[in-house]
Amino acid sequence: MNPSNQHQDQMLETETRKTPANASQTAVTVLGLGPMGQALAGALIRSGHSTTVWNRTSAKADALVKQGAVLAPSVRDAVLASELIIICVLNYDAVNDILSTATDALKGKTLINLTADVPERAREMAEWANHNGIDYIDGAIMTPIPTIGEPSAVILYSGPEDVYRSHHRILASLGGTASFLGEDPGRAAAYDVALLDVFWTAMSGYVHALSIARAENIAAKDIAPYAHNIIRIMPDIMTYMAHDADRGVYPGDSSNLISNATSMEHIIHAAEHHGIDSSVLIAAKAIAQKAILAGHGEDGFSRLIEYNLTSS
Amino acid sequence: MNPSNQHQDQMLETETRKTPANASQTAVTVLGLGPMGQALAGALIRSGHSTTVWNRTSAKADALVKQGAVLAPSVRDAVLASELIIICVLNYDAVNDILSTATDALKGKTLINLTADVPERAREMAEWANHNGIDYIDGAIMTPIPTIGEPSAVILYSGPEDVYRSHHRILASLGGTASFLGEDPGRAAAYDVALLDVFWTAMSGYVHALSIARAENIAAKDIAPYAHNIIRIMPDIMTYMAHDADRGVYPGDSSNLISNATSMEHIIHAAEHHGIDSSVLIAAKAIAQKAILAGHGEDGFSRLIEYNLTSS
Ligand SMILES: NC(=O)c1ccc[n+]([C@@H]2O[C@H](COP(=O)([O-])OP(=O)(O)OC[C@H]3O[C@@H](n4cnc5c(N)ncnc54)[C@H](OP(=O)(O)O)[C@@H]3O)[C@@H](O)[C@H]2O)c1
Ligand SMILES: NC(=O)c1ccc[n+]([C@@H]2O[C@H](COP(=O)([O-])OP(=O)(O)OC[C@H]3O[C@@H](n4cnc5c(N)ncnc54)[C@H](OP(=O)(O)O)[C@@H]3O)[C@@H](O)[C@H]2O)c1
Repeated sequence: MNPSNQHQDQMLETETRKTPANASQTAVTVLGLGPMGQALAGALIRSGHSTTVWNRTSAKADALVKQGAVLAPSVRDAVLASELIIICVLNYDAVNDILSTATDALKGKTLINLTADVPERAREMAEWANHNGIDYIDGAIMTPIPTIGEPSAVILYSGPEDVYRSHHRILASLGGTASFLGEDPGRAAAYDVALLDVFWTAMSGYVHALSIARAENIAAKDIAPYAHNIIRIMPDIMTYMAHDADRGVYPGDSSNLISNATSMEHIIHAAEHHGIDSSVLIAAKAIAQKAILAGHGEDGFSRLIEYNLTSS
Repeated sequence: MNPSNQHQDQMLETETRKTPANASQTAVTVLGLGPMGQALAGALIRSGHSTTVWNRTSAKADALVKQGAVLAPSVRDAVLASELIIICVLNYDAVNDILSTATDALKGKTLINLTADVPERAREMAEWANHNGIDYIDGAIMTPIPTIGEPSAVILYSGPEDVYRSHHRILASLGGTASFLGEDPGRAAAYDVALLDVFWTAMSGYVHALSIARAENIAAKDIAPYAHNIIRIMPDIMTYMAHDADRGVYPGDSSNLISNATSMEHIIHAAEHHGIDSSVLIAAKAIAQKAILAGHGEDGFSRLIEYNLTSS
C-alpha cells in the first residue's frame, strides 16, 4: 500500500462537477469582483446558478451582468438575495469593511469566505460569525484564475462539516478538487499560508532567475523550458523532505547543506556581478549557514525546517 | 507553429542512450567522488566504459571499485589513464586545487567540468584550459542523483561544439537529455545559476512552509500533496511570465502586485505569529513594495524582473 496515495484518498476528495441542467434553483451571492471574484461568479453562472453579485466598484460587474448575473445595489441587498454568500476580496480588513454594513442580514445564512488571510483571523471570523448566528466556512483558493470551474482547481475548506456538506454540490461548480480539512476554521488558512509560501518564494526565485538571464543575454523563453524541468523534479524531493520532517531525521547522503550553501553562494555572486539585488537568497543562505555553524553541514536541506525558528 | 516547441527542438537535444555492448573501449576518468561524482562514475561503469576514479578522500571510491572502477593513486595517474576527464567537486576552488597538481598531464586531453560555479569563473577556466592546450567543456547538472544515467537527467554543456560532439555519445551515458548551449563557455553556468535560483528559493519556501505547518500541527505528509499541486501550476505561469519578460509588458489583469504583496504579508504574519523567521519573504516582499511605490501595483508579478536591479 502506498501511504502517499492512501493519504490523497483521505484528504483530496474529488467532487464530480455537476452538469447545470436543473441547478438554477440554487441562489448564490458573490461579494467582491476582483479577478478571482469575477471568475467564481462566472463559474456559478455557467453552472446554472442564479447569481447575485456586488462589488465596491460596481463597474466590475458589467461582464457578469451580461452573462446573467444580477448586480445588487448594496451589500445588504446582495446578502438578502441568497442563502449562500461567497466573499472573495483583498484581505479580511476588506471583508470586515464589507460585512459590517450587513451583519444582521447575514443571520441564518451561510457565509463562505474565500479571501486569503492568516489562520488566527479565520478563527476570529468564525467566532464573530458564530456570535451573529451565521454559518461560516473559511476557504482558500490554491490555483489561479483559469482553473476556476475546471477540474484543475484546488480549493480548501474548513469549518463545521455539516455546513460544508450541505453546500458542497454548489461549491463543486467552482472547480474540480474541493478539500474539506476539518472543523478548525483556521485550517484552510494554515494550509493556504504554507502553500503560498512555496508559491511566492518560488515565484520570487523565478523572476530573479529571469533578471540574471536577462543580464546574461539569455531570453526568458530560452530558459523557461529548463525552469519547467527544475519544477518537475520538485514533487519527489518534497515527498522525501516531508518524510524527513515528520521523522525529524535529515539525511544528507545525496546532497548536503555545505554543498547547498555553496550552490546558493554561486547564485548570489553571479547576480551581484550584474548588480542584481540578492536579498532573498542572502536571507535563505543565512539560515543554511546557521545550521552549518551548529554542526549540521552534512545534513540534508530538510534540516532547515528546524532553523527557521528565530530562537534557533 | 508553437514557438515553445520549436525552441525545445532547437535547444533540448535528446541523446538516445547507448546500450553498453561494445562501449568498453572508451576510457573515462572521474575526479571527485562526492554524491554526484559517485553517481556519474556509477553510470559510466554501468554503460560499460572503463572508468578510472580519484577523490581526495579515497575511501569514497570503495563501492565504485567493487563495481569495476580503477582507483588512481594520484590526480596525475587518474588523468593519464583516459583521454576524457570529468571533474565534479564542490566548486571551482576545489577544481583548481585538484587540477593544479596535474595541469601538464591534461595537455591534449578533454576536460569536462561538471562542477557548479558562476559564469565568469567558467569563462576564466576555459581561458586557462586554452592556454594549457586542454580541450574544455563546461557543464552543469540540473537534476538530482537518482536521475543520473536515467532518461530524466538534464545536463547542460557549453564550449567548442566539435569537442562536445566528439564526446556526446559517452556523455549520453550520464543521462537522458543532454543540451548543448553554444560556444560561450559561461553559458551552461549562466543557465545553472538562474535555474538553481528557482530551485533554492523554492526549496527555502518549502522548508519554511513545513515550519509553519509544524507550528500549526499539520503533518508534513499532509501538506506535501498540496505542495505538489502548487508546483504543478507553475510551468504554465512560468511560460507566460517569460513571455511578459521578453516583451517587457507585465499585465496584472488576473492577479496584481498589490494583491500578491498582501498575500506575502499574510504568510509573514502567520509565520511571525509562531516565532518563525521570515527574512526570505520579507526580502521578497520588499522588492514587490518597491515596484508598487513606483506606481506598478496594478502590474503583474513579472514586473519584478525589472526591480531586482539594485539601482532600480
Ligand atoms: N487572482 C488570483 O489568481 C488568486 C488566486 C488564488 C487566490 N486568490 C485570492 O483571492 C482573493 C481575491 O483576489 P483577487 O485577485 O480577486 O483580487 P484582489 O486584488 O486581491 O482583491 C480585489 C477585490 O477586493 C476588493 N476590495 C479591496 N479592498 C476593499 C475594501 N476596503 N472594501 C471593499 N472591497 C475591497 C476590491 O474591490 P474594488 O474592485 O472596489 O477595488 C476587489 O473586489 C485574495 O485573497 C487572493 O489572495 C487570488
Ligand atoms: N548532489 C546533487 O544532488 C547535485 C545535483 C546537481 C549538481 N550538483 C553539483 O555537483 C557538484 C558536486 O556535488 P556533490 O553533491 O557530489 O558534492 P559536494 O559536497 O558539492 O562536493 C564534494 C566533493 O568535492 C570534493 N572537494 C571539496 N573541496 C575540495 C578540495 N579543496 N580539494 C579536493 N576536493 C575537494 C570532495 O572531496 P572529499 O570527498 O575529499 O571531501 C568531494 O569529492 C557540485 O558542484 C554540486 O552543485 C550536485
